[in-house]
Amino acid sequence: MRTVRLLLIGFGNVGQAVAELVLSKEAEIRSVHGLALQVVGIGTASHGLAQDPDGLSLSRALGLVRRGGDLRQFSRQPIPSDIEELIRHTQAEALLESIPVNYESGQPAIGYLTSALERGMHAITANKGPVIHAFAPLTALAASHGRQFRFEATVMDGAPIFSLWREGLPAARLDSFRGILNSTTNLILTLMEQGRSFDAAVAEAQRLGIAESDPSGDTEGWDAAIKVAILVTVLMGVPIGLGQVQRRGIDGLTEVDIRQASEAGRRWKLVCGAKRIGERVEARVGPEQLDPGDPLFHVMGTSSAVTFVSDVLGELTISESAPGPRTTAYGMLADLINCVRPSSAATPSPSLTAA
Amino acid sequence: MRTVRLLLIGFGNVGQAVAELVLSKEAEIRSVHGLALQVVGIGTASHGLAQDPDGLSLSRALGLVRRGGDLRQFSRQPIPSDIEELIRHTQAEALLESIPVNYESGQPAIGYLTSALERGMHAITANKGPVIHAFAPLTALAASHGRQFRFEATVMDGAPIFSLWREGLPAARLDSFRGILNSTTNLILTLMEQGRSFDAAVAEAQRLGIAESDPSGDTEGWDAAIKVAILVTVLMGVPIGLGQVQRRGIDGLTEVDIRQASEAGRRWKLVCGAKRIGERVEARVGPEQLDPGDPLFHVMGTSSAVTFVSDVLGELTISESAPGPRTTAYGMLADLINCVRPSSAATPSPSLTAA
Repeated sequence: MRTVRLLLIGFGNVGQAVAELVLSKEAEIRSVHGLALQVVGIGTASHGLAQDPDGLSLSRALGLVRRGGDLRQFSRQPIPSDIEELIRHTQAEALLESIPVNYESGQPAIGYLTSALERGMHAITANKGPVIHAFAPLTALAASHGRQFRFEATVMDGAPIFSLWREGLPAARLDSFRGILNSTTNLILTLMEQGRSFDAAVAEAQRLGIAESDPSGDTEGWDAAIKVAILVTVLMGVPIGLGQVQRRGIDGLTEVDIRQASEAGRRWKLVCGAKRIGERVEARVGPEQLDPGDPLFHVMGTSSAVTFVSDVLGELTISESAPGPRTTAYGMLADLINCVRPSSAATPSPSLTAA
Repeated sequence: MRTVRLLLIGFGNVGQAVAELVLSKEAEIRSVHGLALQVVGIGTASHGLAQDPDGLSLSRALGLVRRGGDLRQFSRQPIPSDIEELIRHTQAEALLESIPVNYESGQPAIGYLTSALERGMHAITANKGPVIHAFAPLTALAASHGRQFRFEATVMDGAPIFSLWREGLPAARLDSFRGILNSTTNLILTLMEQGRSFDAAVAEAQRLGIAESDPSGDTEGWDAAIKVAILVTVLMGVPIGLGQVQRRGIDGLTEVDIRQASEAGRRWKLVCGAKRIGERVEARVGPEQLDPGDPLFHVMGTSSAVTFVSDVLGELTISESAPGPRTTAYGMLADLINCVRPSSAATPSPSLTAA
């Protein structure tokens, strides 16, 4: 049994779901992968910090934070003064970061991930900011330390998009993709088809915990555009920023638009896409009116889907339903296990070995 | 640059597509993966055998076989007397086998794969027979030699199903799956919806090169059932044989059935599924009448799809369109690259590293 020490930065919905998943999967990860996961530090902006080289109790941390308590009360002395100090003073094998996204700069997450990699940890994030703003330097830094920078949870939550390309599709060239990558707007459009106004649909999505209090990151297409830029940069090998994604949101769509489409047997969807044209890539996000023959027509509510067109496989589509903090947390856990488990080339995964 | 010597057993549609893919992807595999692929032996039942330790010309082999020629005429002396001797006398790093499936015993493919593994080669097959009849012993034999037994191409052609579970979904428990896994019957049903009789639809599918001259393996559900048994055995960890899959084909469906469903806005599909019930798994293949709310309703022609329900991700669906010998060949090539490339945990795939 090998002990894997972890540092969690961010302990909101996703960070807490990581803790719950580690608790519920502990026995299985020990028996199948021979790994004992141990959280030795938790850093938050609003609930304090905690560290214990012998391992923190995740159930106690969850209880404390949910009661509005401060993590400092069960940390080992001395308590670090801030997250940077926590990272510097914690011996861990991997950092799992899930703080809120900063679209403009990717900070402070980039700083945290950089510190972790410089100290020889694997750096795993659920945060799109560091990927869009620092994919190349963080990947290079990881490689120079023999470690990994991983971000499976940034696009389609825990659905394995990046590992699919990394392991499942070697020597394939991604020529184009098309999909629905923002759950919140897809839910809003579904609710509008059921007769709600845009504002009422947004309010309902907020009540369900899907839309944020300021929904503009989703409704104006920013979240979808950042995901498109990440897929183009990482999977197509053409580094682009948000400015290179043509972006329109769903905020221009009215109840009348939705009803007229519906009466014609059609549906509005916020469609993402990118296409290789010579050396460059054209990338876009915008509302499109789809007919029932379009596979994306059938993606409803918070579901999402992406169709990849490559030189070797024609169309390959991945879709997921029912995303949430738990599926995002699973994306991070999958990254972690892939970073620390023995190479699959040398030893096949026991789950793929017959009893 | 590392030279990887390969032995191809079977040189029909799929074997020839492997050769074409190796030719077309040669430069990319050299530059991205640092691997020089070299075919040092080809064994066929009807076109003879060839070996050359310095590498055979694939374009010449393709030309010869397509003109009905015999591979022996460009083999180095002495020419092996049969495939077993070819395997014994060829120094190769991997064997890629794509001979016709034998549902009953999995032979002679199991023997070829066993010989290859015993000689320290990786064993890669596109053939369902060895997986259904010998998954456990071939996997154990591979492990005992530090090699791999891989079979990505056996289910949904080159769509990365097994690597998805191996690398993308660690510590996930597959609880159930449901899908359309046989392209031929799906095409026949699509053609019947367009007004053809069962026999005319089968004839058309044969003309398109999709259905075999004896279509019963597809129409009676055998091909679908063997794929279900493979997924249950490999991904659910519950070894089952063909006898444990409840099987009905589409041969009982009439034009009247299809038309009546169509008039009601519904569609018949050959649906595959399996579900964990305690320690055991219930597995089935059979025609079902689906309504438009079912995601499988929209899988048309030769497309296929499977939805996996796991404890960590809810529903995850993979679908592919336009399968063919080239996509099957890609599944084998992906297996090969994953067997021989340096561990991704140690060195990230260059395709995922920013320029």
